[in-house]
Amino acid sequence: MKNYYKLLILVSGLLAFGCADHNQTSIDNEKDYLHYVDPIIGTNGMGHTFPGACAPFGIVQLSPDTDTVPHNIDGKYQPRVYEYCAGYQHKDSTIVGFSHTHFSGTGHSDLGDILVMPITGPVKYHPGTQTDPDTGYRSRFSHDTEKATPGYYEVMLQDYGVKVQLTATEHVGIHRYTFPEGQDGSIILDLQHGIYNYDGKTLWANLRVENDTLLTGYRITNGWARTNYTYFAISFNQPITDYGYRDLQQPKYNGMWGKFAVNHNFPEMTGRKIVAYFHFDHPERLEMKVALSATSTEGALRNLHAETDHRDFDQLLVETQAKWNHELAIVDAEGNDDQKAMLYTSLYHTMINPSVYMDVDGQYRGLDHNVHQAKDFTNYTVFSLWDTYRALHPLFNLLQPQRNADMVTSMLKHSEQSVHGLLPVWSHNANENWCMIGYHGASVVSDAYVKDVVRQENTMLKALERSSTCPYYVNLVDYQRLGYVPFDRNNGCVSITLEYAYDDWAIYQAALKAGDEVMAERYRQRASNWRNTFDMSLGFARPRYSDGRWKEPFSLFDTEGEGFVEGNSWVYSFYVPHDVNGLMEAMGGDAQFIRNLDTLFVMPLPPEFFENTEDVTEEGLMGCYNHGNEPAHHIVYLYNWTSQPYKTQYWLREIMNRFYKNNIDGLCGNDDCGQMSAWYLFSAMGFYPVCPGSDQYVLGAPYLPYMKVRLGNGKMLEIKAPGVSDENRYVQRVTLNGEEITKLYFTHEQLMHGGELCFEMGSTPNVSRGLATEDKPYSMTH
Amino acid sequence: MKNYYKLLILVSGLLAFGCADHNQTSIDNEKDYLHYVDPIIGTNGMGHTFPGACAPFGIVQLSPDTDTVPHNIDGKYQPRVYEYCAGYQHKDSTIVGFSHTHFSGTGHSDLGDILVMPITGPVKYHPGTQTDPDTGYRSRFSHDTEKATPGYYEVMLQDYGVKVQLTATEHVGIHRYTFPEGQDGSIILDLQHGIYNYDGKTLWANLRVENDTLLTGYRITNGWARTNYTYFAISFNQPITDYGYRDLQQPKYNGMWGKFAVNHNFPEMTGRKIVAYFHFDHPERLEMKVALSATSTEGALRNLHAETDHRDFDQLLVETQAKWNHELAIVDAEGNDDQKAMLYTSLYHTMINPSVYMDVDGQYRGLDHNVHQAKDFTNYTVFSLWDTYRALHPLFNLLQPQRNADMVTSMLKHSEQSVHGLLPVWSHNANENWCMIGYHGASVVSDAYVKDVVRQENTMLKALERSSTCPYYVNLVDYQRLGYVPFDRNNGCVSITLEYAYDDWAIYQAALKAGDEVMAERYRQRASNWRNTFDMSLGFARPRYSDGRWKEPFSLFDTEGEGFVEGNSWVYSFYVPHDVNGLMEAMGGDAQFIRNLDTLFVMPLPPEFFENTEDVTEEGLMGCYNHGNEPAHHIVYLYNWTSQPYKTQYWLREIMNRFYKNNIDGLCGNDDCGQMSAWYLFSAMGFYPVCPGSDQYVLGAPYLPYMKVRLGNGKMLEIKAPGVSDENRYVQRVTLNGEEITKLYFTHEQLMHGGELCFEMGSTPNVSRGLATEDKPYSMTH
Repeated sequence: MKNYYKLLILVSGLLAFGCADHNQTSIDNEKDYLHYVDPIIGTNGMGHTFPGACAPFGIVQLSPDTDTVPHNIDGKYQPRVYEYCAGYQHKDSTIVGFSHTHFSGTGHSDLGDILVMPITGPVKYHPGTQTDPDTGYRSRFSHDTEKATPGYYEVMLQDYGVKVQLTATEHVGIHRYTFPEGQDGSIILDLQHGIYNYDGKTLWANLRVENDTLLTGYRITNGWARTNYTYFAISFNQPITDYGYRDLQQPKYNGMWGKFAVNHNFPEMTGRKIVAYFHFDHPERLEMKVALSATSTEGALRNLHAETDHRDFDQLLVETQAKWNHELAIVDAEGNDDQKAMLYTSLYHTMINPSVYMDVDGQYRGLDHNVHQAKDFTNYTVFSLWDTYRALHPLFNLLQPQRNADMVTSMLKHSEQSVHGLLPVWSHNANENWCMIGYHGASVVSDAYVKDVVRQENTMLKALERSSTCPYYVNLVDYQRLGYVPFDRNNGCVSITLEYAYDDWAIYQAALKAGDEVMAERYRQRASNWRNTFDMSLGFARPRYSDGRWKEPFSLFDTEGEGFVEGNSWVYSFYVPHDVNGLMEAMGGDAQFIRNLDTLFVMPLPPEFFENTEDVTEEGLMGCYNHGNEPAHHIVYLYNWTSQPYKTQYWLREIMNRFYKNNIDGLCGNDDCGQMSAWYLFSAMGFYPVCPGSDQYVLGAPYLPYMKVRLGNGKMLEIKAPGVSDENRYVQRVTLNGEEITKLYFTHEQLMHGGELCFEMGSTPNVSRGLATEDKPYSMTH
Repeated sequence: MKNYYKLLILVSGLLAFGCADHNQTSIDNEKDYLHYVDPIIGTNGMGHTFPGACAPFGIVQLSPDTDTVPHNIDGKYQPRVYEYCAGYQHKDSTIVGFSHTHFSGTGHSDLGDILVMPITGPVKYHPGTQTDPDTGYRSRFSHDTEKATPGYYEVMLQDYGVKVQLTATEHVGIHRYTFPEGQDGSIILDLQHGIYNYDGKTLWANLRVENDTLLTGYRITNGWARTNYTYFAISFNQPITDYGYRDLQQPKYNGMWGKFAVNHNFPEMTGRKIVAYFHFDHPERLEMKVALSATSTEGALRNLHAETDHRDFDQLLVETQAKWNHELAIVDAEGNDDQKAMLYTSLYHTMINPSVYMDVDGQYRGLDHNVHQAKDFTNYTVFSLWDTYRALHPLFNLLQPQRNADMVTSMLKHSEQSVHGLLPVWSHNANENWCMIGYHGASVVSDAYVKDVVRQENTMLKALERSSTCPYYVNLVDYQRLGYVPFDRNNGCVSITLEYAYDDWAIYQAALKAGDEVMAERYRQRASNWRNTFDMSLGFARPRYSDGRWKEPFSLFDTEGEGFVEGNSWVYSFYVPHDVNGLMEAMGGDAQFIRNLDTLFVMPLPPEFFENTEDVTEEGLMGCYNHGNEPAHHIVYLYNWTSQPYKTQYWLREIMNRFYKNNIDGLCGNDDCGQMSAWYLFSAMGFYPVCPGSDQYVLGAPYLPYMKVRLGNGKMLEIKAPGVSDENRYVQRVTLNGEEITKLYFTHEQLMHGGELCFEMGSTPNVSRGLATEDKPYSMTH
């Protein structure tokens, strides 16, 4: 052991020298960061990212949809719909068209609004099938013709010889279609296409031909978002010479409507399933701008004019890519090409959702379906909070605090406009989808408040209280009465109880800071509820009945329907981020806790395991550790509370190498609106917010030798880890602005001062580092 | 003949004495005019009026619906839907519930929004059937328990023992339900009920329980109005103790929605066919206020608060009835009870549609489906213009010019917000229904402009031009090319051509006054187009083919589908209101014209006649004169252009006696938003606007001995016809403010000065009156 330490000191000294190498104080905005990003990463299989064009945090995500999969046919659920959460699967060979809204990396599908397809030849009103593309307007394509960078997508439509180029502003998708020379061309506008489509998703659509270069309209859909209003305004750079439509579901009785022909060159089209065409004579280079709004066609027109007037495709592309470069320049990193691709693509993926959800004049649709005026904030939507409370919103607190403040304000507005008074659970486009579990809006709000990113105490405390006491929200009555959610009332009871307890702790922190001691104490007590579903005799979390009995039979591998949600007892038992000391004790103390963690990462799994677990593939697992599902995300950092903190450093690098890859299958699971990516960015920097709502970032190990990060307050944080490698993965010594940090965490305040964070790395662990009680990260009990 | 004249002079002298009897200068607002009105008139058969409660020109018409008749079942049209244009048929024995929107007297059905039904006992989600009412929530009732006066409706629901009392403000329906003592009660709120309903009319509905006395919500329907947004806010004077709903058409896939029970005491209900109940413990006297808005639930809440805060049912009833009394006091008339019932009920029926279509703060939904802010005008909707251009809007120019100015502004806004740029044809609730023929918005706009009720020249001329040249509007291209609509292109060609020609004349008048001579000349020429569908050899209007040939075979009785719309050549040949002299000549001169008119009123009809004619019953006819359909309305006045003007006076009284009766069948046809009633009011006053767009009112004969009319400018017009009776139906002599009027018309200016209009009546015609050319009313050709 002694020689081992000597070696470490030697190595540390060498590496410390390297630490002085960089001393830039600003990011080089002239540098091109775009080319590091590969939007294709994660577009195959489970990543559920899209390759198309968008502006940072824009509401338009203009991207190819490669197939049309209904979520049900005659009431029977079609599992394949799950593959099309982002509309695109890299394995597909046809493109149906280019629609304007896409989730980034979600585990549930929706959107795909306002599909556009350029065609030549006869008009087709149906998309056709992948196996027989000629039956519809879709086209074959080859990946060889695809180019994707932030804000830009290009492809050649093989069946029509049309070259497609796409870019986008925040509210506007911009298309350039280069048609074969001398040929006529048409644009198909399919208002019944959608992702998570079914016979009836489009409740109503309306389309007006305002003049020969301008369309307006909207559709209302009942998709995953129960009531989604998508207004649009579309301009062309060439005149429409002929147009028409079919309503694929004619109303049964038209009344007097129909007394004159309305299907051809009649400028008003209304119905349930409108598919229209617009014909152009020799279009050659047709440019089309599609502005969206959730409030009105007037809103869409305002967005169109404000963001694109007097600029063509090329100019708008330059503008959007400049915006992306500015956002990507938040990080300046060194590393090999694969590492940079992964890092910058991750950064890119953190800046798509949540998305701006208001018009340029601040009008937006609220949870009450009414139109509101945003005063002094930008309204955002797409809150996949069960995922993103963990690392994405904490990342924003560091890098984009103004945006996160606006997101929190948007969430508080949500709570005010919702009839329930609750913070969002999984919300998008002015709808609450109630997806997943917990009330993690509480975590996001409290974390931002604790870190001084937001104020608004009164609104906040009211929303936190309502979110955690609502009598009809998932088993909150049981939870408050029994201190846990019983299995006989909800078969996801353990996951729910554990997450409620953490959320309660986050509320406790907010109430404490706000000075409401009574409320704080109430939630401090609730934060211990994790114990009520923890079988101390077993040392694991376990479902429990209302009468207190533990569930029988029970296996640590039991998952969905057996007490857990997207996990099992092996994973979920580690879910007490706010009281890791208490958890450690409950598991049997330091040694047993370490043994459990070690086992988690290495245990062999029976093949039956995968049958019962959603979202999990064998490639996504390390032992029973499933990085593709979020409940595991903090686990690797838990060694920091034990006597073997260095094991975090070992397993971290394994996870990063194994589950983030520079290719189409690059993500081991859904990116989940940037949560997977935010985890990666934090971990690459060398720390992670294990317990949002505390001000601590728990130590990991840097992944790259050098990163410079532009913090939200404009200061620069340089993270240096010279010589770091798969070999040199262990942290030997840490200094912040020259001062040694012995603790296993950094505080938010420390980091926000910026400066130089220096990691001395080595190939063997510094096993004596961070063992003192005072060096340990936060835990509710000590 | 000489003795005859002497007698007349004697009689005239006697009657002239009576003329001095009245000299009131203001209407007595203290007098109760309400009790003259019987809203039950016209509620059986063809009248299509409703008996329920509304405020003058209010958007809420709260009235019982006595059956639910879909307009189609499995795609098959159900003719009975036509009976329920106003939701109520007097012959029915059950009440389904009380819905908040109803047309008054239309020939097409729609609306019936937001149905409320108070019940006791178990909740039922279906309305049940008339033959077996116990299968649903509907109730039996007896007319004995009904009371209806302006602004008030009362009935006892037999099956529940609930006494119902209804009143309304402009935007709010107010219900009082007296439940049996000691019993619990529930309110059914059926968001899928509607008039002109079908499986799918309700595109989407949303309902929120804001607190235990307040609901908000909306529904979007695809009825006759293709896209109709009805938002509401509902308050109760007692707390809801329990509530729930069923969605009678569950979405096929709920997504994550459904993870907790949402059908009971869950405050958000959304779907296609929502039927909800709200339970009250011992409600006894439950008061419920239902505010409507077309813009948002916030708009509905504003309307609710502004119009009803701090007032209960009784206070609001008093306020609304005071408003009605003020409006009804526009006329102070003498006559027998039946005559007064008919007169005041007619007056009442002219003040329901068009209806105010904006929130108290001026926000309204426009034709572009966007929400607009009305600046300096009140937005109105329900424009049944093919009917109402004839007498209703002209009546408003006399009695309610400010309202008519706002209606015209609403129509001009319609043209600006419509993608077509056209004036309304048949529009309601921000939708154009394209019902009936012509572009009679041109008549309404021009008439108001000619009478100095509106200005807005530029907007007006643009709208007039577009309305009359739109290439896709009914055969306008043919009409402009050929000078008539050919039969091979449209089987309503004659009616359409004749009406276009009149509308063109109205545009000519507007252009003339606006000083646009080029436009005026163009439309002056178009105004002669009636000649192109007039077979001069026959002396009647007749369908014609594109190549100029006249239709063969042809009968003067041919109607729908044979060249005519709601009429035949016998009626439509008289439809040249702007060029009666030209028409007279085309028919063969004075004698033949008189013979034709005489024949029209007396000819026997073959029974087959009725089979091919919509809206016509044998009781509604006098010869071939069909007063129930509007094309006939001016005909009786045409004798004024002939050498026998007194025949107008004879037939007028026949028509008034025969077709307007003080009972449930009191109207011989659809009241058509007040057109039938406005005809009656004009005719009762003794003159009629045969040709709106001219400033002349053509002489008829007063129906009552005394009427005092409050003109729109505040002046009073007293119309005296002492001794008038069925016997003394002939006008002998007319004086206006003492000065003799020898002409067969009054000008708008003359009448608007007010004063005393004195008719000397007699039992035999004054055959020598009004024979001079200079006494004849306007005609384009002389």
